[in-house]
Amino acid sequence: MTEKDYQHQLSLKVRDYECDIQGVVNNSVYQQYLEHALHEFLLDKGIDFADLAKNKINLVVVRAELDYKRPLESGDNFLVCTNVQRASKVRFEFLQDIYRENDNQLMLQGKIIGTAVNERGRPSIPQEIDQLFV
Amino acid sequence: MTEKDYQHQLSLKVRDYECDIQGVVNNSVYQQYLEHALHEFLLDKGIDFADLAKNKINLVVVRAELDYKRPLESGDNFLVCTNVQRASKVRFEFLQDIYRENDNQLMLQGKIIGTAVNERGRPSIPQEIDQLFV
Amino acid sequence: MTEKDYQHQLSLKVRDYECDIQGVVNNSVYQQYLEHALHEFLLDKGIDFADLAKNKINLVVVRAELDYKRPLESGDNFLVCTNVQRASKVRFEFLQDIYRENDNQLMLQGKIIGTAVNERGRPSIPQEIDQLFV
Amino acid sequence: MTEKDYQHQLSLKVRDYECDIQGVVNNSVYQQYLEHALHEFLLDKGIDFADLAKNKINLVVVRAELDYKRPLESGDNFLVCTNVQRASKVRFEFLQDIYRENDNQLMLQGKIIGTAVNERGRPSIPQEIDQLFV
Repeated sequence: MTEKDYQHQLSLKVRDYECDIQGVVNNSVYQQYLEHALHEFLLDKGIDFADLAKNKINLVVVRAELDYKRPLESGDNFLVCTNVQRASKVRFEFLQDIYRENDNQLMLQGKIIGTAVNERGRPSIPQEIDQLFV
Repeated sequence: MTEKDYQHQLSLKVRDYECDIQGVVNNSVYQQYLEHALHEFLLDKGIDFADLAKNKINLVVVRAELDYKRPLESGDNFLVCTNVQRASKVRFEFLQDIYRENDNQLMLQGKIIGTAVNERGRPSIPQEIDQLFV
Repeated sequence: MTEKDYQHQLSLKVRDYECDIQGVVNNSVYQQYLEHALHEFLLDKGIDFADLAKNKINLVVVRAELDYKRPLESGDNFLVCTNVQRASKVRFEFLQDIYRENDNQLMLQGKIIGTAVNERGRPSIPQEIDQLFV
Repeated sequence: MTEKDYQHQLSLKVRDYECDIQGVVNNSVYQQYLEHALHEFLLDKGIDFADLAKNKINLVVVRAELDYKRPLESGDNFLVCTNVQRASKVRFEFLQDIYRENDNQLMLQGKIIGTAVNERGRPSIPQEIDQLFV
């Protein structure tokens, strides 16, 4: 992995309340990490998840695939690295990898497939999102 | 404690993801239990938190006091018991106790002070809430 | 769907704190629902996730696939339905579907692939789990 | 508030999944913020919550008081500011304030009273914690 390989990187640190009985980050928390990194990536591109929601345009996930490679633990710093590619006219694939910072180990690989829908649940891709792929 | 002492009771079970490194329910989770029990209590009285939020009436917490007596653990069933009393024209006190079901031990005592505000952040008490105290 | 189609069913209700800015259950929360239902299923079979963790046998997820069909909302009651099948000597597939109770609509389809590892991270399948497939 | 007034400060940003139906950070999440800031403060002083837990010394909260002043929203950066004082031989008070960074507004005031207990639940204050007050 080099910095050039990804369109966006976010550095985070494990919080102890995110860890469970096994002493490692709970499986559901990785999806929170991916969501947060994704929203920060979109924000960098001028796309504000919360503003869109207020305007009844909802970015939604239709499928998530998560490969758990190694568990993050208390004290770990990690990078959430994101790429996006178009899957169809109305679907986007976010490829997201999580690396532990101290040894650059791959901890999780995620593929999040999303779209945007309007108030009636119909696909409605905001122009700013279309422009991600120009 | 007898059932008569409380205006509302909700029976729940600890979920493993709610437990942290110490193997017990994380401190922040109790406030989730209290919130859920409170919303169920209000729903029983015809007050729907989510509907109110849609209509720009927000039930908000202004102060929370939580006394942690004993920790809940994986597998525990527990009761969240709720009473409400009026603290002022616009403030309500929800007295909430959590008991472990297998031995009736008091695990947590909470006092949640809340009010309701409109879109401009001004106190605005829905009639249904006023009627809790008639 | 009929009750016979699944080895285990758990009835739950959406809690308001599980819903996000969009007014629906946050994507990461479904994985918590699946985990809780899975642990309840295993408990029914005599397999206690928390006890195993204390004895340094960790049940771990290696891959999760989640298909989001429709969003759960505040007030919804739902069923988490679970089947398990053996994927290999050391891997298990949990097929988990979530249905909204009032109209029996499929809300989410999940496939969780897991294994069990010992303190050194090596596959170590407890006898009780092996017996799930006898 | 000036930087000198607090023994520790941590800068964080609201994550969208922490916000609820009302479009603001859920009440229970503030306690997660306070816990994380507290653990970072302790780590700076050489006290590792997770390591202590592994060695069966548990830092526990006995009481929490939270005054909600204003709600944090999506996109907000904020500071969690922490002071500690001794309340008794075996109890500590962590005074924690949360400020929104863009306008320095006080959002929440917290008082967390804690102690440390050994495997039998008896107070057992690690030397490193005693030394916080020398």
